[in-house]
Amino acid sequence: MADLPDKTAALIDWYLAAVDAAELTDKRYPVKGMNVWTAYGLSARRNLDAVMIREIEATGSRAVEFPALIPRTEFVKESEHIKGFEDEVFWVTRGGGSDLDIPLALRPTSETAIYPIFALWVRSHRDLPLNVYQIVNTFRSDTKTTRPFLRVREIHFFEEHTCQVDESAATERVRSNLAAFRKMAEALCLPYLTIRRPEWDKFPGAFYSLAFDTPVGGAQTIQSGTVHHYRENFSRPYEIRYEAADGSQRFVHQTTFGLSERLLGAVVAIHGDAKGAVLPAAIAPYEVVIVPILAAGAGEAVLAAARGYADRLRRHGRRVHVDERDDRPGAKYYHWETRGVPLRLDVGPREAQTGTATAVDRLGRRSTVSSASLESEVHGILLDFDRTLRERARAAFTERFSVATTLPELTGSKTVRVLAWCGKEECGHAIETAIAGGLLGTPEEELPIPLGDPGPCIACGSTETPKWAIAAQPL
Amino acid sequence: MADLPDKTAALIDWYLAAVDAAELTDKRYPVKGMNVWTAYGLSARRNLDAVMIREIEATGSRAVEFPALIPRTEFVKESEHIKGFEDEVFWVTRGGGSDLDIPLALRPTSETAIYPIFALWVRSHRDLPLNVYQIVNTFRSDTKTTRPFLRVREIHFFEEHTCQVDESAATERVRSNLAAFRKMAEALCLPYLTIRRPEWDKFPGAFYSLAFDTPVGGAQTIQSGTVHHYRENFSRPYEIRYEAADGSQRFVHQTTFGLSERLLGAVVAIHGDAKGAVLPAAIAPYEVVIVPILAAGAGEAVLAAARGYADRLRRHGRRVHVDERDDRPGAKYYHWETRGVPLRLDVGPREAQTGTATAVDRLGRRSTVSSASLESEVHGILLDFDRTLRERARAAFTERFSVATTLPELTGSKTVRVLAWCGKEECGHAIETAIAGGLLGTPEEELPIPLGDPGPCIACGSTETPKWAIAAQPL
Repeated sequence: MADLPDKTAALIDWYLAAVDAAELTDKRYPVKGMNVWTAYGLSARRNLDAVMIREIEATGSRAVEFPALIPRTEFVKESEHIKGFEDEVFWVTRGGGSDLDIPLALRPTSETAIYPIFALWVRSHRDLPLNVYQIVNTFRSDTKTTRPFLRVREIHFFEEHTCQVDESAATERVRSNLAAFRKMAEALCLPYLTIRRPEWDKFPGAFYSLAFDTPVGGAQTIQSGTVHHYRENFSRPYEIRYEAADGSQRFVHQTTFGLSERLLGAVVAIHGDAKGAVLPAAIAPYEVVIVPILAAGAGEAVLAAARGYADRLRRHGRRVHVDERDDRPGAKYYHWETRGVPLRLDVGPREAQTGTATAVDRLGRRSTVSSASLESEVHGILLDFDRTLRERARAAFTERFSVATTLPELTGSKTVRVLAWCGKEECGHAIETAIAGGLLGTPEEELPIPLGDPGPCIACGSTETPKWAIAAQPL
Repeated sequence: MADLPDKTAALIDWYLAAVDAAELTDKRYPVKGMNVWTAYGLSARRNLDAVMIREIEATGSRAVEFPALIPRTEFVKESEHIKGFEDEVFWVTRGGGSDLDIPLALRPTSETAIYPIFALWVRSHRDLPLNVYQIVNTFRSDTKTTRPFLRVREIHFFEEHTCQVDESAATERVRSNLAAFRKMAEALCLPYLTIRRPEWDKFPGAFYSLAFDTPVGGAQTIQSGTVHHYRENFSRPYEIRYEAADGSQRFVHQTTFGLSERLLGAVVAIHGDAKGAVLPAAIAPYEVVIVPILAAGAGEAVLAAARGYADRLRRHGRRVHVDERDDRPGAKYYHWETRGVPLRLDVGPREAQTGTATAVDRLGRRSTVSSASLESEVHGILLDFDRTLRERARAAFTERFSVATTLPELTGSKTVRVLAWCGKEECGHAIETAIAGGLLGTPEEELPIPLGDPGPCIACGSTETPKWAIAAQPL
């Protein structure tokens, strides 16, 4: 029951301790950066997947699944792409007792697995748009420090791959993805900024890359998703073409939309507090934990009331757990707070007798709910809990940006920095050096702080094509 | 629209053609035995997973997920196990640009990934039983002929791993698994026999192995799942021990329960007919397809009725698709029959006007359903459809066994064979040679044909310890 490190003073230490304390993962697996999904963590992940599936399927995308192994011959077809990934790929070189004729890449991402088959699936304009997604694990042989959910070597990954008739249809698909992510982030109570990555930091092979970045404290951000427009960059080498209505053969324009378990890490990092994780109702393994408070003579009535409430809430579609362990109520409170459960219902002899429960949400707000309106009151409390999380996170979000007008100001910055940038790569790198992080790029949407027109480039002073840009340190 | 091969005369040819025609998979991926899960196939797989999850979680098992890569050092700890798998393992030997210090096995099964962590999770008798399962893909570098769902190299896999206080608790867990599988098979309308595998064919490292075998025609069977009792065979090398109530240190007894995408293959093989796949409602991607039959002047009313029915059925929890493609009704009928959809509702001008739909189930049975009682009538038709599938499959099942009393009778057998076996391995191999297949072992439950006491061993004539045993050819 050790206290967690101070979140403001030592964010990453707090994060690592909070993830451990919540038992969302077990890091003791004997391969660096490959962690075990515990029952609790996997339940949160399934709920997160359900949010992603709901929103992407609402846009007409269908689930498919491609193999995990990609022949080297397919993997190397797009030159930028292979350059971007060759240092991170795990290679299967032996099968059974013998060397494979063609080594197989354990997918770091699935463009090169999927596109040879897209070339078979797409024949005519009637086959378009082709919008499919898969939720699979991907693998990166990253030698840097690993962190649960945020930087791992086996990654739980969501990837949509689409083929469109032309560039503008692909741009439209990008917009649809942005709107779908808006809804996912709403369910996770997660504020973010959509940022267009600079040329040198876009996805290998992309025409352009948009990313969702969330400041988490200090100058630090978590990138929790990306949407890429590929134009014909992959359809040409993989020969994905179709017969247009006029009979001509054209290459498709492609897009991808990538999310991962990082979203779970971002949720923990954003909402957690001194007591541990705080999970929005949409992904909490249990939305409600009921703690029976037994007293001499009232044990059976209390247990019956607790179980009765649980049954009713479950029939109403709620994820509910009754903690019947033989332990002190205080220990149980602590246990479930650490794990971020949105709502606790305490049921003691008084509650059992009066047909009530004492509700305490994860933000510490207490109320009494009545058995007669249990389902609707719990529904209301959870809605209010999520709304409060969302507002609290949004308020912190707006505090985490500030404008910088000179490079020295970037050093040791205590916020994410908004600055004027002329667009030149060398100025970008000067900015990155100054902040000891990355130039995330140019925002695609309004910033949460008031801004006039950008002044001269913070690096070179040019006043020719300055744009507002964002510099930060990835957590 | 080519006809399928004759199912009775050429089962495997029919199977391969039926799977292709139903578009459950795409075999054109450029790695042998690794196929693409199409949107339709993946939807069936998700439904199958949901059946497995429902039944296993009802027995108190919780989902977890372990990494896909297993260090060689862990992989080799149980000698029988590694001997059983070393010829089938894909090895990752390179990461990024360099050789790995310790090669990583791409899991062919997860005992050796999970048990080092079980050793950390299990401390006291209070931690037991530990019942967890995962649904992940496993990999086998099999060089034999591959067949979709039945023999592939990337396998969609369900594996439960448990730790119990002692041998009899583990035996009890085996029984619980058998009961859970009984319910899964019920949902899939799949008859099977539980058979105890002979010593030489049990899971590498197991104390004993039970398997579920389903005859599919001729002497052929599909093994669609297994349950293993490990005793202390793994807990000793992996040091999974606990403090008993009396303070002593004991090794846990373990069990596993394995299922896979083979179940989907078995469903197709068992229920399919000359028109293609026939899917039980529980796993059909669409339980109901509605075909609007447009006619001049009635187009809008027909479409409105079809969509209205679909909305109502969806609100009732049904998976429904309205086929609004611009194509002939007959072509649509053929399309969905090939894909095994349990129920079609035809809605034409007459139906739209009278508030009805013409229901045709996949077995060709027609009826008229009324809008007023749409939900309950569709429910009833689907229940009856499943019941009929189950009865039909059960009737065929009982026809697919026959007794053999001499070895020569086994050659070219037209059924699965029931025979007396003394239990000796050399007699078992003689039987396997005669039937050109496998001695599946001794049944754990009553056979569907009347049997007296077993006579002398079919191979050696010994009358000492004869038992009824089953010989067959794996499909």
